Amino acid sequence: MAFRFDISARDGRARAGVITTLRGDIRTPAFMPVGTAATVKAMLPESVRDTGADILLGNTYHLMLRPTAERIAALGGLHKFMNWPRPILTDSGGFQVMSLASLRKLTEEGVQFSSHIDGKRHMLSPERSMQIQRLLGSDIVMCFDECPALPADKSVIAASMELSMRWAQRSRDAFGDRPGHALFGIQQGGLEPDLRAESAEKLRAIGFDGYAIGGLAVGEGQAAMLAVLDYAPGQLPEDKPRYLMGVGKPDDIVGAVQRGVDMFDCVLPSRSGRTAQGWTARGPVNLRNARHRDDPRPLEEGCPCPACRGYSRAYLHHVIRANEIIGSMLLTWHNLSYYQRLMAGLRDAIGAGKLDSFVAAFHAEREKGDIAPL
Amino acid sequence: MAFRFDISARDGRARAGVITTLRGDIRTPAFMPVGTAATVKAMLPESVRDTGADILLGNTYHLMLRPTAERIAALGGLHKFMNWPRPILTDSGGFQVMSLASLRKLTEEGVQFSSHIDGKRHMLSPERSMQIQRLLGSDIVMCFDECPALPADKSVIAASMELSMRWAQRSRDAFGDRPGHALFGIQQGGLEPDLRAESAEKLRAIGFDGYAIGGLAVGEGQAAMLAVLDYAPGQLPEDKPRYLMGVGKPDDIVGAVQRGVDMFDCVLPSRSGRTAQGWTARGPVNLRNARHRDDPRPLEEGCPCPACRGYSRAYLHHVIRANEIIGSMLLTWHNLSYYQRLMAGLRDAIGAGKLDSFVAAFHAEREKGDIAPL
Repeated sequence: MAFRFDISARDGRARAGVITTLRGDIRTPAFMPVGTAATVKAMLPESVRDTGADILLGNTYHLMLRPTAERIAALGGLHKFMNWPRPILTDSGGFQVMSLASLRKLTEEGVQFSSHIDGKRHMLSPERSMQIQRLLGSDIVMCFDECPALPADKSVIAASMELSMRWAQRSRDAFGDRPGHALFGIQQGGLEPDLRAESAEKLRAIGFDGYAIGGLAVGEGQAAMLAVLDYAPGQLPEDKPRYLMGVGKPDDIVGAVQRGVDMFDCVLPSRSGRTAQGWTARGPVNLRNARHRDDPRPLEEGCPCPACRGYSRAYLHHVIRANEIIGSMLLTWHNLSYYQRLMAGLRDAIGAGKLDSFVAAFHAEREKGDIAPL
Repeated sequence: MAFRFDISARDGRARAGVITTLRGDIRTPAFMPVGTAATVKAMLPESVRDTGADILLGNTYHLMLRPTAERIAALGGLHKFMNWPRPILTDSGGFQVMSLASLRKLTEEGVQFSSHIDGKRHMLSPERSMQIQRLLGSDIVMCFDECPALPADKSVIAASMELSMRWAQRSRDAFGDRPGHALFGIQQGGLEPDLRAESAEKLRAIGFDGYAIGGLAVGEGQAAMLAVLDYAPGQLPEDKPRYLMGVGKPDDIVGAVQRGVDMFDCVLPSRSGRTAQGWTARGPVNLRNARHRDDPRPLEEGCPCPACRGYSRAYLHHVIRANEIIGSMLLTWHNLSYYQRLMAGLRDAIGAGKLDSFVAAFHAEREKGDIAPL
């Protein structure tokens, strides 16, 4: 079965649809939980699926270092290795090399770096990144790219974008012809509309199965990000999935969906689940706070996740204070469940042509704040 | 429904049966996973149940300090708090006070001590222990007792045993009449047959719903422990459950069942699950060892647990090396599953009158050692 994207409904600039892959459908707008080291932290994959996730993200940088892509390939690929039979998108490793590795040396060829685990030297290039993602068996492969931290001089952003576009062509060439597998290009250009336009044009000329909006959520703030999203999705092909990498908080996602983005990934719901933060329709809740100590109510009334069905805030507070693993397990489950419920709500609203009222209700509920202590 | 113990089969000194409680049946010989701080570490309670556990153990000492028994009672009791609707046995707190608390002061009245969490002063006595276990809502309550570390002078062991027997009477008096709830006495006397006999006689004179064999698994070694079990169970009433506290390794349990013990608890399977040790019919396996790095085979062939059904040794090795929570989750699940399969095997063998051949096969399999690396 070929990789395909079908848009079933539009509401303003927002779209709802389905991405078809060899390993199953992805309902869009989609949120992809992050499974960095071949696990969504503190969750079994069948539980991740139960929250409503259609696709996971795996990190090339982490997996190439440990256990290595070659080892995963010999064991039958990443899907089998981590017991997740559904679609997997892998990033290119470029972003993590820049944020995690040390002794980096960036050249036209690629990036040399030392592993943050054992200090060993490695090389990532468009060709090596394509090879690794192929060894992993990724369904959606990302181009190898580079992006500077913001703020940066426009000339720096331009040079970086141009390098990424040359790497996009090399990624496309190295990816080859893999029926059923997709290669996504990544738009760069920082906060500069003309550089974004130039990047989009170069990517369209190469031709990809989907297009990511890269270089955002790197410290520019929500207003600046949404300002880019006012025009960037429109620079990309209308009939292909648009993926905003590394985003975000629930209100970031809502704003991006309104502006025509179809796919998201972020460590926030899972990371928050390990740091006592629960995400609800009324905003984030810090379960470590003593006000939950005697509260018999669930974290979020009506939430169907195991944390809310089986436990009180008092229990969650207790196990978090006692550093019990079940605290991370339950809170991660809840957070991923909340995110997937939000995505389902967005999809339904777009399908019904009622996105504006959904978004208004979303913001109204958040403004109420968390339920008062008993 | 009254608390009841029905023996359905005997094989040598071993017995198989069912303990009936208000919250469900307990098949014996039974292994009770330890849920110290209102959680069996790294497991959801429904998963613990899936391994075959009929009953959990909760620790009075930990729960009285955090979140406190009074708080758990106000929230509806320990079963509701931790989302485990089935039977719970609570220990008396005596053993943990001696092993974990500081600044202990032992008197006829009880033990004063400082919390290992915040240093606050607390008091445990037979009366306070009964009150706490009642607040928790425990189905099987343990007498408050005291036991010296071995080796110790016989006079020290005798004096300690006599104090514990006076406390047993006070526990019985304070427990009162609670239909459907059971109070177990605890035999002491170290490795001394005459002290064990005297302790058993005093307990029988008071009268309990079940009898624990205490003061073992405190460093005396398996041979010394089994030597005590050659006579101690026979000193206790034939028609009541016998519970060997804090035991043990699989071969300890097998030896104790052969000698007439009905109930066990131990942190070993869950603790091992967080330290890379998997328990199998062929003995313990250290998954951290590099020999598992490329092994596509499950930890234990034919095991129905999620770790063995869904993952390779290579995966378990990887997530353990990467300190991923899923490593503890999967390995704990496997270990509890292995322990419950062992108990089911013992029960079936006793029922069929084939315990000797079951035990011979158990030891023969262990002697083979873990499967060879590929």
